[in-house]
Parts: sequence; structure tokens; C-alpha cells
Amino acid sequence: MKIDLNSDMGEGFGRWSIADDDGLMEIISSANIACGFHAGDYAIMDLTVQAAKARLVGIGAHPGLPDLIGFGRRPMAVSDTEMEAMLACQIGALQGIAARHGHRVTHVSYHAAFGTMANADDGRALRLARVIAALDRELTVFCMPGQPTERAAEKAGLRTLTLFLADRAYTAEGALVPRGQPGAVIHDLAAVRARVRQFLEDGSVRTIDGGRLPVKARSILVHSDTPGSLDLARAVRAEIEATGAELTPAHLLTD
Amino acid sequence: MKIDLNSDMGEGFGRWSIADDDGLMEIISSANIACGFHAGDYAIMDLTVQAAKARLVGIGAHPGLPDLIGFGRRPMAVSDTEMEAMLACQIGALQGIAARHGHRVTHVSYHAAFGTMANADDGRALRLARVIAALDRELTVFCMPGQPTERAAEKAGLRTLTLFLADRAYTAEGALVPRGQPGAVIHDLAAVRARVRQFLEDGSVRTIDGGRLPVKARSILVHSDTPGSLDLARAVRAEIEATGAELTPAHLLTD
Amino acid sequence: MKIDLNSDMGEGFGRWSIADDDGLMEIISSANIACGFHAGDYAIMDLTVQAAKARLVGIGAHPGLPDLIGFGRRPMAVSDTEMEAMLACQIGALQGIAARHGHRVTHVSYHAAFGTMANADDGRALRLARVIAALDRELTVFCMPGQPTERAAEKAGLRTLTLFLADRAYTAEGALVPRGQPGAVIHDLAAVRARVRQFLEDGSVRTIDGGRLPVKARSILVHSDTPGSLDLARAVRAEIEATGAELTPAHLLTD
Amino acid sequence: MKIDLNSDMGEGFGRWSIADDDGLMEIISSANIACGFHAGDYAIMDLTVQAAKARLVGIGAHPGLPDLIGFGRRPMAVSDTEMEAMLACQIGALQGIAARHGHRVTHVSYHAAFGTMANADDGRALRLARVIAALDRELTVFCMPGQPTERAAEKAGLRTLTLFLADRAYTAEGALVPRGQPGAVIHDLAAVRARVRQFLEDGSVRTIDGGRLPVKARSILVHSDTPGSLDLARAVRAEIEATGAELTPAHLLTD
Repeated sequence: MKIDLNSDMGEGFGRWSIADDDGLMEIISSANIACGFHAGDYAIMDLTVQAAKARLVGIGAHPGLPDLIGFGRRPMAVSDTEMEAMLACQIGALQGIAARHGHRVTHVSYHAAFGTMANADDGRALRLARVIAALDRELTVFCMPGQPTERAAEKAGLRTLTLFLADRAYTAEGALVPRGQPGAVIHDLAAVRARVRQFLEDGSVRTIDGGRLPVKARSILVHSDTPGSLDLARAVRAEIEATGAELTPAHLLTD
Repeated sequence: MKIDLNSDMGEGFGRWSIADDDGLMEIISSANIACGFHAGDYAIMDLTVQAAKARLVGIGAHPGLPDLIGFGRRPMAVSDTEMEAMLACQIGALQGIAARHGHRVTHVSYHAAFGTMANADDGRALRLARVIAALDRELTVFCMPGQPTERAAEKAGLRTLTLFLADRAYTAEGALVPRGQPGAVIHDLAAVRARVRQFLEDGSVRTIDGGRLPVKARSILVHSDTPGSLDLARAVRAEIEATGAELTPAHLLTD
Repeated sequence: MKIDLNSDMGEGFGRWSIADDDGLMEIISSANIACGFHAGDYAIMDLTVQAAKARLVGIGAHPGLPDLIGFGRRPMAVSDTEMEAMLACQIGALQGIAARHGHRVTHVSYHAAFGTMANADDGRALRLARVIAALDRELTVFCMPGQPTERAAEKAGLRTLTLFLADRAYTAEGALVPRGQPGAVIHDLAAVRARVRQFLEDGSVRTIDGGRLPVKARSILVHSDTPGSLDLARAVRAEIEATGAELTPAHLLTD
Repeated sequence: MKIDLNSDMGEGFGRWSIADDDGLMEIISSANIACGFHAGDYAIMDLTVQAAKARLVGIGAHPGLPDLIGFGRRPMAVSDTEMEAMLACQIGALQGIAARHGHRVTHVSYHAAFGTMANADDGRALRLARVIAALDRELTVFCMPGQPTERAAEKAGLRTLTLFLADRAYTAEGALVPRGQPGAVIHDLAAVRARVRQFLEDGSVRTIDGGRLPVKARSILVHSDTPGSLDLARAVRAEIEATGAELTPAHLLTD
């Protein structure tokens, strides 16, 4: 079994950083790189792409809303057309940086409120998927199962890759238990490893009410900007290796 | 004789604008589009590319320093590597926007202090030219004659196109008379038309000391952000048509 | 009768401008100066305060949301505390500029979405009014009649000044007819002058359905960023002078 | 003997932070607060002023150049007038925040390149000092001995307070040994404590060539944005307490 391990990278700005990018880059197989709208700048994008290339890590654009102060987490009053333009600018900018280093952008993973807004309805999701396809038909789109982005990407002829969140509880219906609810985030590393093992060996996750939910995901996301993210990433990676699964960049996989 | 007429476009920000882009777009054959660093934003880039495509105007990236307040006119303390990353981000972003509209970025024209700094020495100019070549070997680089950017572009295997500034006085050596010196800028439209005619018919310009200087340029630049730029552009275009020259987008020409 | 004529000033950014500030400053008696969040920067604030002082124009802070691209017109997902901090920063910054020129900030006029959000409920309006009072108890708050900002300012012990919009239609209930509805904006200068005359001589306005609405306003607002704003301001000023009313900066008046 | 211990605070932006402000605020007696130009934003300024007030820490403005990406460390091509406006905006903004919390800005400490540029010549230094005096004649200006800022502040009738940098080597002439030269930064905490002791008990520092240099400083600066800054601050504070000196906010002291 081949599996991808991805994380958000390059989410600093100027002299500020938010995660241990150097440490994480040694562990993951795919990096979702901020493109200067919610975080990241030209210099950080440049260093992050170089670091990814040196470690054979696949790179994807991680487009967000133009909101540095809010880190792209606040919904904004923007039109579909503006979102399309934001998306094209951000993927394009990263493609430019990648080209100069002889690397290639191979996936797209929406950030925070941009992702929420992209999934507001099927029409908007499709417009955005068509932007991605216009830039590069080979791009893989990261998805949560059943959301408009998944349907839109398929309609636009793009490959999709579904994410598994190893440290987040799932409902019986396959949705994430919202942050803030008890048990929504699994902090215990042994429990996380057990979940990764079940996912890899049985293709399923134990839901918050104790049931068994089949999970078709091919990529595990580790949030980089939470305390302990490096340990979490190491635990997930160790379990991947323990089960004999093969760590593989996202663009070499598909749902 | 084929000749290009180009101008800087999309140099507003948010609700602000600085030139009559709609008017100029009807007159020019190539647009140098700001890429969000010194001016322009995702929405303006999007509209400008659409407008250019609708009028069969060729588009180029107009990269500048990341300095909205200074409009990219102030030199900045940045490294070669930072300039390379800035350049890749800006061309890439415009390529992304162009791709989504089925248009194509076909030239690059440095803006203000970015251009001055790019021409500081041959080494830096070459590093930047190689960034351009890495993004797209077909890109044409706009040059002033004899500057490092011209040599660098040729070394990097890129096509160049030399600019003629119809409303600026030239020295006997072929340099522009610096703004601020008497006679540096020609405001009289009849005089500008006479200069365009001499340039098109005789391949030369009358220098500030009355001599005749051969000019090999294939593209005429009209600054968009000065008062009367629309009238100036109309005068230049009228003279081009009067001499029987054929208005042609930059990427279809070469030095 | 004493009456104030005010307009939004300093709403450019860097090299960009949006109104004929030099022309308007000769006509108005009070300037609402952008403070760098939705528009304006340190240099523009500096020049605008100097120009106002030279013409004996009263100055007020014109605080907006931190959104240059959206010109402060888009609602934002921010907390009451964030709005309080935004407000304190902006008034304070303008007070700093005013102090260095020996001028004084004497009123506050909320901009666009900041104003809409400030009027969302009485609780928020009061928190903001208390910020203003903490900075300077002598500040006059510009209001539209009956809104939370008016009640809040009074509760916080601040003076208020109600605005009359000479070029906007009013409903029978005293609200503005929303832009976009037919007749919402009065473009005919003679009609605007007639409205100013009725307001000054009779203290009333003819509503959109033909009725007579008493108006207690003491200050007339002319939007600076619409085409023809200079002519509109001149027409209003001419009518003020024709009726024998005395043009007076806002802080010397009160409701 | 009374002595101040100060550090730069509030130098984050949005979700990003650069120092352990919470930890340092428990140790220092004066906080130099970033004002949104090189770092800091309205929300961070608001929280930092509140935290300082709760711990009886004195607050000062820490004005920098408008350069978030460069953290205010890069010289910029700006005029004296622009620097004056920048300074007035930043002090004013912090005064606004302080006023809303019933605290008061009592000192000014220039940041990085703003400080270097302010000390470029006596004329500029005086213009800036006059801006400070215009905003509040009671403001204390932080100085390095013998620099233009010190002379200018005195000429403008402002109080000054000279800084001692406990972890930086001094030349025999009283200048700091430039970073990058061997021994410029003292990393050993015991050595730092010994220097603080000599400074407090003997009013002197041992220079890099082994001599004894009298130091008239009344305030010790601990850089917040270097690794180990919290331990360094604790070491300095422990030595202050061990020598029986009394920790006192800057504005209660004077040179």
C-alpha cells in the first residue's frame, strides 16, 4: 500500500515563522506551500520549494484568502470571480518559483476559509476546479470526502486525493467532529498511531460513537501549526513504516 | 515595417487607478501588466488580461519591487536571490491569470527600481534572465540598448526587444536625458509625432545636441501614468499608421 | 444659521488618489481624514492635515476597516475588541500627525463598513463611543439620525453632529433610499441646490414620495470619491452662501 | 540605585509572534511596543498595552520603518518629512491604545533601521525629536551615548535615558562591537551577570580590549527576539535584585 503524508509548509511571513518546517520536511512526502495571500512571501516560497526539492518532497499550492492578519481564517465578502483570480495568482506564483528550481507543482490544497468558501456550493467549486484545470490538467486536488470540491474536480477532469486526518475524530457519517467538541482532537500519540494502523490495515477509522467507518483516503494530513506537530508527524510516519506501507508523494497516487 | 506600441497597464490597486487603461488598451499592441508587487492586485490583473485578450493585445509581466506605497520607485536593500524569487512569483502569477483566460504571457518588462537594480551589474542581470528562461524560453525581454539586461537575455537564450521612448530626449551616446534636465521630456505632440516619423522612416532619432543617432528599436513605449498619456498614445499610433508601418504585438517581433 | 460642509479627504494610498482633495479643501469647512486602514498613509495624512490647517478646515478621524483592497467597504469577521483597538489606533495616529502640525482632531466620522458594523447594535456602538471618549472627551461624533452611534455618543458624554446628505433621497421615515434604487442619488446640481436651500431655510427635506421631512442636521456631507464631487461641493457651498448661512467647522457646532 | 530593565514587545503580526512576551512582561520594568509599521498590529498593540498595565510595566513607542517583510531592518529611501510623519503616526497610535486602557506612553525607543537613519545626522535627529516633543513634552527618549538622538532630544527639551546592553561587547570608545565580529555578543549568562554587577556597582563596563569604561546608563536593554532572551532577562533581573538596585520604569528615571 502506498500512502502520502502531507503538511502545510511555508506559512511564515518575513522573519516570522509558525511551524518547524525544517523538521517536518524530513518526515512528510508532500508539502502544501502557502502562496503569499494568507501567509508566505516570495523568499519563503523560494526556500520552501528548494527544501522540498532537495528531500524529494512533492509540492502543492496552498491558496488562501488575502488576509495576513487573519491568517486566512476569516470568511471574506468576495465574488466567485475574485476567488478564481486569487486561485490563479497563487498557483501561478508557486509554479513560477518551482520552475526556477526545476521542481513542479503537482497538487492543490485549499487553506482554511478559502476552502470553506470553495465548498459553499457546487457552482463555485466547479468554477475553481476549472481554474486549476486551465493552469495544469495534471494537478491533483486534495479533498475531504463528499464535498463539492471533490465532485467539481472530477467534473473538471482533475485527479483527486482524499485526506485522512489522523488526529481528528470522525462522526458515523464521515464528517469531522467540530473543534471545540469533546474528543474532537486526539492528542495521545499512541492513540493516533493506532488510528493510522487501522486506517492502513483495515481501510477504516473508529468513529466517535465507537463504530467502524470505511475510509478511502490515500493521504494523511498533519497540521503543522499546532504545538507538538513534529512529534505527531513522527508518530504517523513511524506507524506508516511499521505497517510496511510505502510513503509516496501525493501526485503519484490517486483516489 | 512592423512596430509594437506598448504601455504599462493594470497599475491600480483595489479601487485606485492611475491611468486610463480602457482608453489605452484600444490603442496599444502590447500591455506590460503590473503583478501585485508595486501595483496591481489579483482582480485588476484578471480584468486587465481579459481586456487585453479581447483586443488582441499581447501581454507581458511588469515585475516591480514589493513596495505599494513607493510604487516600486525606491531602491530596496534586497539580495539577488530575493530579486530572483520576486521575479518568478510575479511572472508566474500573471501566467496563472493568463492561463485561466486562454491568453499567454509573451514578454517581460521590468518596472522602475526593479529595472534599475536588475541593470546594476551583468551578474545580477544574468541571474534574472535565467529565471525568465526557466519559466518560459519563449518570453521576449524588453530592453534599453546596451544595458546588462540585453546582454543577459541574449546569454540566456531569450529574445530581446529594444524600446524607443518617443517623448524622451536622447544624448549623443544613446542614453536618455535624465528627467529634471531641460528638454528631457518632449511634451509637444507634433514634436513627438515628428520623432516617431523619423524613427520609423529613417531608423534614427535627433539627439538633444542636434545630431542623428541610429535607433534599432522595434517597440515604442508610452508611459501610461503621466497626464495626457492617452493623447500621446493616440499621436504615436496616428503617426505609425500614417507612415504605413504595421502595428504588431511585441512577441511577434524581435531585435 | 451656522452650517458645516464636510467631505472625506486623504483617501489615496502611496501615489494613488481618488478625489480632488486640493480643490475640495478650498470649499469645505471640515475634513474627515482617512487613517491608513481603508485608505491613507502616513505621508498622505501628513499632507492632508497641513492643507486643512492652512485653510482653517476642521479635521476629524475617518476610521475604517483594515482593508486597502476593498477600500473598507466589505464587512469583516472581527470582534468588538478588535474594532475598539482599530478605532483607538486610527484616531491616535491622526492625533499624532495633528499634534506635530499644531492642529487638533476635533471630530470622528466612521467610514463605510466600519460605520455599518458600529451601528449593528447598541452595545457595540457604546463600546466604540467609550473609546472615543477615552481618547478625547471633546471629540464630536458624526451621526445619521436615530442610529445606535448617536445614542451611544450621547451616553458616553460626547457631542454629536447629524449629517444631511444633499445628493441622496430620503424615505418618509428619514432613512436614505438605498443606492441602486431609482432616484436614490440626485445628480442634477440645480436639484441639489434646491434641497440645500429647503434644508437651510425650512429645516426639512422633500422625501422620495413627495412629503416634507424635518431634518435636524447641522452638517452637510459631500462624498468626495464620486465623479463630479467638486462641482457638487461648489453647488452646495454656493447655496449655503446664497441663503446667508455661515460656513462653520463641525466642532464649533453641535446638535 | 534605581535601574530600568526594558525589552521590545508586541513584535508579532496577526497570528505570528517572535518572542515570549508573556514571560518577559513578568521580568521587565519598561516595554518598547511595536506600532504596526515593522511589526505589531492593532490587536497585538491592544493586548500588549493591557498586559503591561496589569504588571505596572511602563510603555514606550517602538517606531520602525513601514516594512513588515524586512522587520524594519532594511534602510529605506525616504525623506525627513516622511520619517517625521511615520514617527507621529506610530507614537499617536500607541497613545490612542494606551488612552483606551487608562495607561500612558512615557518613552520612545527607535527600532533598527529607523534608529540608524534617525542618527544619520543632527538635523534629522532634531526634526524627529521635535515631533516627539510636539506629541508629548514628557516623553523620555532612549539613547545610545553620544549619538545625534541624544543631543537632539536635549535640544528639544526632552528627557533622555541611556541604554546599557548587557550582552554586547563595548569598544574602548564606548561603541558597540559590531555583530559578526568575534566576541561581539556575550552568550554566557554568568558573564552577562558579572557585567551587570560591574555596571551597577562600579558604573562601568569592561571593554573588549580589557579596559574599564565608565557607563552612565540607567536602563538595561534585553533583546527579546533572540533565542534564550527569557533566560537572559531573568539573569539580568536576578543580578539587579542581588545588588540591591531597585527596578524602576524608565519614565521615573532620567540621565
